Formats: sequence, structure tokens, C-alpha cells
Amino acid sequence: MFDDEIRSKAEAVLDAARARGVMLATAESCTGGLVAGALTAIAGSSDAVDGGFVTYSNAAKVQLGVPEALLVSDGAVSERTARALARAAREAALARAPKGAERVAVSVTGVAGPGGGSAEKPVGLVHFAIADAAGTRHRVARFGDVGRDEVRRRSILTALDLLLESLAAPITV
Amino acid sequence: MFDDEIRSKAEAVLDAARARGVMLATAESCTGGLVAGALTAIAGSSDAVDGGFVTYSNAAKVQLGVPEALLVSDGAVSERTARALARAAREAALARAPKGAERVAVSVTGVAGPGGGSAEKPVGLVHFAIADAAGTRHRVARFGDVGRDEVRRRSILTALDLLLESLAAPITV
Repeated sequence: MFDDEIRSKAEAVLDAARARGVMLATAESCTGGLVAGALTAIAGSSDAVDGGFVTYSNAAKVQLGVPEALLVSDGAVSERTARALARAAREAALARAPKGAERVAVSVTGVAGPGGGSAEKPVGLVHFAIADAAGTRHRVARFGDVGRDEVRRRSILTALDLLLESLAAPITV
Repeated sequence: MFDDEIRSKAEAVLDAARARGVMLATAESCTGGLVAGALTAIAGSSDAVDGGFVTYSNAAKVQLGVPEALLVSDGAVSERTARALARAAREAALARAPKGAERVAVSVTGVAGPGGGSAEKPVGLVHFAIADAAGTRHRVARFGDVGRDEVRRRSILTALDLLLESLAAPITV
């Protein structure tokens, strides 16, 4: 299902999460569950993966905790929506965690194509965010119109990279 | 990411959902988001996929709506937990849907291996359920110890098959 590049990054993320003593949560739109799917492709991932949300529709994003006004003002594919998704996924994971446990969440929201692009938000535009105890961290990628599968594949890799960096160097506010 | 067999089944499921006027929701444990990932691999899936839950930990299952007592009595990998997961995913999707809209949910919970198996619940045992307006439908598969990736691949196919059958022939109670 997943190539070696994705699998080795997923393993590194799981190791980093274990080293930090955190479990991971996801909130995915354009990747539709594949970041969680990649992490759980690794045997033994249940000690580092808590769970996730596939927030494909806007209604699913709102239910998780993204303000509807933000979806109207900034759109689903935006920095602030990515940050809100990650924050909401982390809060949901914390709400079900033992007291004192720590959770780190990653979010992905973008235009995978081939439809849905615009001049302002072209196919291949993907926003990512991490939420941890100190706040949120954002990254944007413009993969271009490289095909739906490839936009999604690169999005998985970028989400795993961002997780790795954040687990290695926690955000300070 | 996904082979032609998965992609063609995913397309058929999306077409059937559109024909029935329903949107789909998922609750995945051992497949970790891959059923949603397969459905959203198809361009234009946003008109038939609402969203989903990756309920990897037991805490995530309870948060979605599986009774904790059921996880204790029957275990995470069981018929009743599969039915409860599908029902809870459908209810969550309905709660965020426009009034009168219909939602169909599928759930997957199993032992992907290589660890975690027992005499009673060996590697390759996977329970599936569908929830729609009329109730729930269950299927169990025993794929055997064919490797983690293959258990997950066959689980995706079985979940898509079950969705197809249920969308073609709604449950009557």
C-alpha cells in the first residue's frame, strides 16, 4: 500500500513519539485518512497512535471544532483552518486521554484535484498544521498539478516530516 | 497508492451512494483510515463521502460512542463492537447533516498482526458492520496470518463489498 519512503518516515515518527511519550492524532481532509493509514501500516503502532478524524466535508470540520465563520472567511484550504483542525484533533484526543497525558496532532487540508482549483487556490495547494502543548505550527506546500494521487502522496510525506520536526523540537511560545 | 481492484470497487461504492442519495461515513480501527482513503482516492468523491473516524485506541472508540462495558465484555474485535462503531459513526454524521439527509456508515475492527493475536481472536480476524436507517448489518472475515498489509488490503475490499451490497439492498428490519 505504502512505498518505502512513506514507511520509513512513518517508523521514524512513531519512534519520535514514543521517545517523547506522546500519542498522535490526525485531522485529514484531502488525504482522507492516509496519514493515519501510513502510521498504522507499521506493526506496533498502537502504542503511539491514538486515532484521527477524516474531516472531508465542511460539516465534519465544524463538528470537530473548526468555527463555521472561519470556513466562510478563509475557506477550508487555509492556514487558519489547518491550525484549527490540528488544535481540535489534539483537544479531542486529550479529552479521552488519561489525566496528564500528552497528545500531538497533525492536520492536512488542500486541493488534491483534478477539480476544485482556482486562481487563488490552485490544485496542489495544501496546508498542514501541528498542534502540541505549546501551540500550533503551520506549513504550506504548492505541489502543482501533479495528479491527485501524487498530491496526496506528497502530502502524507510532508505531514510526516512536520510531525518529525515538531516531535524533535517542541514549539515554544 | 491503491491498486485497480480497490479503486474500481471504491468507484462503484461512490456511484451507488450517489444513486441512493446518501453520503458515507467510516469508523476504522485496524485499517486505520484506509477505507476512507480508498474512497477519497477517486476524484469527485466529496459529493458522496462525508467523513470518518480512525478509532485506533479504545479511548477513541469510547469517545465516538462505543460503550466501555462492551469493550470489556466482548473486546474491541467483536461483532457487537463493529456494530456499535458503525452506528456511532452514522449518528455522528447525521448530527452534522442537513435535516432529512441520510448517511450510511461502515466500520472495521480486527487483528492485523503480526502481534495481538490469540487462540480465540487470531491474526486475520476482522469484523465489519454497516449502519443505515434500518439498522446494522455484520460480517466477519478470517483472512489468516497473511501479513499485516494483506490483512488490511483485504479488509478494505471487504468493507467496500459490504457497502456495495448494503447500498444495493437496504436493510429491512
